[in-house]
Amino acid sequence: MGWRARVFVTPKQGVLDPQGKAVQQSLHTLGYPEVAEVRIGKFIELRLADVSRDSVETRVREMCDRLLANRVIENFSFTIDPENP
Amino acid sequence: MGWRARVFVTPKQGVLDPQGKAVQQSLHTLGYPEVAEVRIGKFIELRLADVSRDSVETRVREMCDRLLANRVIENFSFTIDPENP
Repeated sequence: MGWRARVFVTPKQGVLDPQGKAVQQSLHTLGYPEVAEVRIGKFIELRLADVSRDSVETRVREMCDRLLANRVIENFSFTIDPENP
Repeated sequence: MGWRARVFVTPKQGVLDPQGKAVQQSLHTLGYPEVAEVRIGKFIELRLADVSRDSVETRVREMCDRLLANRVIENFSFTIDPENP
């Protein structure tokens, strides 16, 4: 049985997010004035081969730290679930 | 009280995801051979002003359909929660 990890990478609070600003303005233009803020990050889905639960958590955290997120300007979080057969 | 919507936009199954392939190869190079697949999508957080629960759901779905996701090649899903004060 493998695992499915879902990683959420978001710009840190205080870091400028011009893409989010652009989307917010477009939403206003399209008629959604209720949109007060937009922040755009990445959603990364990983399928992982069979390893132990503890090990998969440690290793996904490592992957985020080393490659998937830029810790200077981004935060990350993730969930791990057993993969459906 | 406002709302916080979290939108997940993912490439459809069968649609090529070269960015995901590149990240997968980098993870292999970094010593994570257990990574069987990587798909990269967008994670969009919206802060929304005070509207009714029903209305916010309808309107966020509309925003996804009209702007946030490209329905030809992407799927989307979202969650909506009351915003912490």
